Amino acid sequence: MIGHRIPEATVNRLPVYLRALAEASSSSPTISSELLAEKAGVNAAQVRKDLSHLGSYGTRGVGYEVGYLMHQISRRLGVDNELRVAIVGAGNLGQALATYGGFASRGFQVVATFDSDPGKVGHRVGTTSVRPASTMPDVLLELKVDIGVVTTPASAAQSTADVLVAGGVSCILNFAPTTVVVPEYVALRQVDLGVELQILSFYRQSEVAPVAAGE
Amino acid sequence: MIGHRIPEATVNRLPVYLRALAEASSSSPTISSELLAEKAGVNAAQVRKDLSHLGSYGTRGVGYEVGYLMHQISRRLGVDNELRVAIVGAGNLGQALATYGGFASRGFQVVATFDSDPGKVGHRVGTTSVRPASTMPDVLLELKVDIGVVTTPASAAQSTADVLVAGGVSCILNFAPTTVVVPEYVALRQVDLGVELQILSFYRQSEVAPVAAGE
Repeated sequence: MIGHRIPEATVNRLPVYLRALAEASSSSPTISSELLAEKAGVNAAQVRKDLSHLGSYGTRGVGYEVGYLMHQISRRLGVDNELRVAIVGAGNLGQALATYGGFASRGFQVVATFDSDPGKVGHRVGTTSVRPASTMPDVLLELKVDIGVVTTPASAAQSTADVLVAGGVSCILNFAPTTVVVPEYVALRQVDLGVELQILSFYRQSEVAPVAAGE
Repeated sequence: MIGHRIPEATVNRLPVYLRALAEASSSSPTISSELLAEKAGVNAAQVRKDLSHLGSYGTRGVGYEVGYLMHQISRRLGVDNELRVAIVGAGNLGQALATYGGFASRGFQVVATFDSDPGKVGHRVGTTSVRPASTMPDVLLELKVDIGVVTTPASAAQSTADVLVAGGVSCILNFAPTTVVVPEYVALRQVDLGVELQILSFYRQSEVAPVAAGE
């Protein structure tokens, strides 16, 4: 089954399973779909269906082998090799991301930070020194950056994305509160923290559980 | 049609439309579904379908009235009145969120920040002074906090969520890289930044566009 198209909703849950498996790996070499479901905040039938897309069916009465399943999910997500991350915008959010413990433990290495503000250039952020934004075209190629994280103001987001794409970056995670456009061959995710709060607000006032997205 | 159940995928796009409309509002009093779609990064048929869930159908040849549509979406999202936010965990990410410009402009006011580290208590973060985490039970009720944002380490996330729920908070946005459990009447969203990168990584290596989640 490996190689077939995996539904978006399943892809979105695979990293959550991976995180839950990492938490569970110290306590037992196997895990039931029920326990994995509980740790991931979904139901057991969903876990079994999602993992069947990886060709993983578990063993009746035993469940899944934790280490092997982590290997399978990591490989399918492409995080079995370390990916190189550049953060553009060394403000509060950029600094928070550069020092975020959850990246390194999950296969992402922040190799460069950039800012257009001369007052920020040269400052230590996480394990990097902030470089001038003007050096991006050379540095992105030199350091073979895989993923660009945009934490600039909205007004600079599109031009930053353009420079990242020209520098060979194949994935962009955009935190700036505006929509950016990239060529089709570039993977793009937008994370707008104001949007997240507004979605929450909807469910608060409607006081109904979300309708699960279909597959 | 107002009051019927809106699909999760539509709810997730409404804040993006609202942001695009705010960007467009200075240039024209009306907007076509095509232009709104372009600004929101979706297609026009999707826009028309999503907005029909609000009972908004636009006018042929004219499009949608920007101001009225913003009012409709804001009301449906419950952000037409200001919501009060508390941030728990005044590390880098908590500080980034407390000073994030995109909140205030979209109906969210950060009214309190908390940390369990005495070294952080009393420090200015955004418009608040960091309070001791031990004061949460009283302060949450006193300030009538609507939304709690969890930016603690993973190990403190569940206990923090429990205190937020006991303090009457009806929405929780969890950034800690672990799954927390809350009662059904509490709206919960989990934003794990490592998960976002792993999802990106999947689309990078598979080099296919995401399969859109159905409705």
